[in-house]
Amino acid sequence: MTKFQAEIEVMPKKEILDPQGKAVTGSMKNLGLTEIHNVRIGKHITLEIEAENTEVASAKVDQACKSLLANLIMESYTFKIAEV
Amino acid sequence: MTKFQAEIEVMPKKEILDPQGKAVTGSMKNLGLTEIHNVRIGKHITLEIEAENTEVASAKVDQACKSLLANLIMESYTFKIAEV
Repeated sequence: MTKFQAEIEVMPKKEILDPQGKAVTGSMKNLGLTEIHNVRIGKHITLEIEAENTEVASAKVDQACKSLLANLIMESYTFKIAEV
Repeated sequence: MTKFQAEIEVMPKKEILDPQGKAVTGSMKNLGLTEIHNVRIGKHITLEIEAENTEVASAKVDQACKSLLANLIMESYTFKIAEV
C-alpha cells in the first residue's frame, strides 16, 4: 500500500450566489482595498489516503467528494493527488 | 491597470486541532472509506484584483489575508497570483 496526499478544492458554482464572498468583497472596500472584486470562498481540504496505486486513490477521493465533501447541487470540486 | 486573479489557501496550523476535519475523518470510516486519514479543512478563496504589476497585486493580497481572510493565530495562508 502506498500513501498519497490529496488536495481538494470545493467551490460554490459560478452561477450560484456566494453570500460569504459578497460580504468579504464589501469588507475589502471598508479596509481600503478597493481594487479587490469578486471574492469567492470555498473549502480547501487535505487528506491522506492509502491505496495500491494512483488510480485507486483517485477513485476513493472522488467517492469521498461526491458522498461527503461537496454538495454537488451548489458546489463543484477539483483535486490533485501526490505520493508522499 | 492590469487584472489579476488570486488563489488563496487558508489552512488551520498543523499544531492546532481541526475539529471539523476530525469529524469528517470519522464520517469517512462510517462511509466505508477506511483508507482515508488526517482530513484537514481550510478555506479556498479566489478574488480579482486590479494593480499596476504583480508585485503590487501580491502586496495587496497579502494585506487582505493578514487583515481579513486569515486568523494568523490559528491559520496560515499561501497564495498564487496570475494575470488574466
